Amino acid sequence: MSLTSTPADLGPREAREHFRSGADVHTAGWAPGRTQANLISVPADWAYEVLLFCQRNPKPCPVLDVTDAGAWTTPLAPGADLRTDIPRYRVWKDGELAAEPSEVTGLWRSDLVSFLIGCSFTFEAELAAAGVPVRHVDQGRNVPMYVTDRACRVAGRLHGPMVVSMRPVPAELVDRARQVTGLLPAVHGAPVHAGDPADLGIGDLGRPDFGDRVGLHPGDVPVFWACGVTPQAAVMASRPPFAITHAPGRMFVTDVPDAHYRVG
Amino acid sequence: MSLTSTPADLGPREAREHFRSGADVHTAGWAPGRTQANLISVPADWAYEVLLFCQRNPKPCPVLDVTDAGAWTTPLAPGADLRTDIPRYRVWKDGELAAEPSEVTGLWRSDLVSFLIGCSFTFEAELAAAGVPVRHVDQGRNVPMYVTDRACRVAGRLHGPMVVSMRPVPAELVDRARQVTGLLPAVHGAPVHAGDPADLGIGDLGRPDFGDRVGLHPGDVPVFWACGVTPQAAVMASRPPFAITHAPGRMFVTDVPDAHYRVG
Repeated sequence: MSLTSTPADLGPREAREHFRSGADVHTAGWAPGRTQANLISVPADWAYEVLLFCQRNPKPCPVLDVTDAGAWTTPLAPGADLRTDIPRYRVWKDGELAAEPSEVTGLWRSDLVSFLIGCSFTFEAELAAAGVPVRHVDQGRNVPMYVTDRACRVAGRLHGPMVVSMRPVPAELVDRARQVTGLLPAVHGAPVHAGDPADLGIGDLGRPDFGDRVGLHPGDVPVFWACGVTPQAAVMASRPPFAITHAPGRMFVTDVPDAHYRVG
Repeated sequence: MSLTSTPADLGPREAREHFRSGADVHTAGWAPGRTQANLISVPADWAYEVLLFCQRNPKPCPVLDVTDAGAWTTPLAPGADLRTDIPRYRVWKDGELAAEPSEVTGLWRSDLVSFLIGCSFTFEAELAAAGVPVRHVDQGRNVPMYVTDRACRVAGRLHGPMVVSMRPVPAELVDRARQVTGLLPAVHGAPVHAGDPADLGIGDLGRPDFGDRVGLHPGDVPVFWACGVTPQAAVMASRPPFAITHAPGRMFVTDVPDAHYRVG
C-alpha cells in the first residue's frame, strides 16, 4: 500500500494483505461494496450450539460460512487465512478475554470450527450510494456498538444479550435506510429499532460498549441494527472453555460483492 | 369440517386438526397465506450435520425452526403436535423407506431433533394474488418435484442432490413470479431455473420423482424452485440409521403468515 492510498482504494485481497502484515485498524470504509464478516471459532463440541444459536437469532447472527473443524480457509475469500487476515483477534478462555493478538496461528486447534457472520459494514456503501450519510466513516471512527437488554433465544448452553450497532441518520432518511438495508438480511437487514436508546436498555449513547463514540448532527435519529458481536457477548455470558473471535469493528473482509446477498 | 368446506376455507389450526384425524391429502392450497413447512427429524448425533447441510444449502433448505431433542412442539404453531399433525409421514431406516404412517407417536424417540424447513406452497397465495396462475392448485394436484443433477454442498456425512418443484408459468409472467418469490427467501425465494428441464438433468417433466404430473398450457414455461424434499434425498443418499420426514407435498401447516418472512 502506498502512503497516499486510502482504504477505499484497496480491493479486498490487498486489504487482507495489509492486515496480515500487522495493520491494527477498524475496517469500516475498507473495500467498499465487499461483504465483511464477524468471526467466532469454537471447539467442535460447541459447534452445534453456536450454529443453533445463529439459526434462532438470525438478525444478529446471519451465518455466511461455517468451516470444517481445523480449517482456516473459506470459499468467501479464496487464498485468505482466517488465522492472520483479521486486523486484531480476541482469545477467550472460560468466557474471559485472555488476549488480543494480531494473529492466532500459534493458538489454532484442529478441533476449531469457525463461523463467519455477516457484518453491517457491508451495507454502508449501499447506504452512501442511496444518499444516506454514514457518520462514523465520515468522522474516521469505528461504529459504536451497545449491549442491549434484549435476550437472544437460548441454544443449549449458549445464551446472551443482543448487541447492536448504531448509526445516526437524518430523520427524513430513516425510511430509506430501512429499505436499503432490509434487502440485505445476510448482513443484519433492516434496523431493529430507530429512536429512543432507552427502548433497548441503552443508557448513554456517548459510552458505547464497543467501538467509538460518534456524533449526531442536528435532526439525526439514532438507528440501531443487530450486530455480529452478539456471539461474542454470548461467549462472555456462557463461558465455553475456549473461543477465538475478531475484535469488534476489525472484521474479516471477504471477496463477495454485497449485491450477492441482496434479496428481491 | 363441513362436507362442503374447501381447504381454502380453513384456518391453519382447523387444517391441522383435520390432518390429525386422519385425512391423507396433499396440502397445496390449504390455509392459503400461512407458512407451510417440511419436516426432518433425526437422532441428536446427526443434528449438527443436518443444520450445517441446511446452512450450506440455503435455497433448498431454509430453516424455520429447530426443536430441542425429543420435543414435538414448535413456536411456529402453538398447540400443534409434530407427531400427528402432518397428513402423512415417512419413516427411514438406514436410508430406506420403512413405512408411511399417518402419525408417528409410537415411533418418537427422546433423542430426535426436528427441523422445520420452508415450503414453496407458502408463496402460492402471493403468486395468485399477483396474477400468476398456480396450475397444480387449479388442477387439484400436488406440485411435481424432481431430483436434479446438481449436488448439494456436503456437510460431514450428509450429501445428496438438490430437489426442485416445478410450476408452469406463462412466459410473460416469469419475471413477476421471480420478483414475488424473491422476497420470500425463507420459503425458497426466487426460482433456481426457468426453461429447459435438461439444464437441471430432468429428462421428462411428465414423470416427476414426487408429487403429481401437472399440465402446461400453451405459452407456459416450466419454472423450478429449490424444494424442501432435498433433505429427504440426502437421507436416501447418506443413510442415517433413523429419520422421520413428512411425505412429499403433505406438509406441516404453521400459524405464521407468509408476510412474516417477506424481506424488504
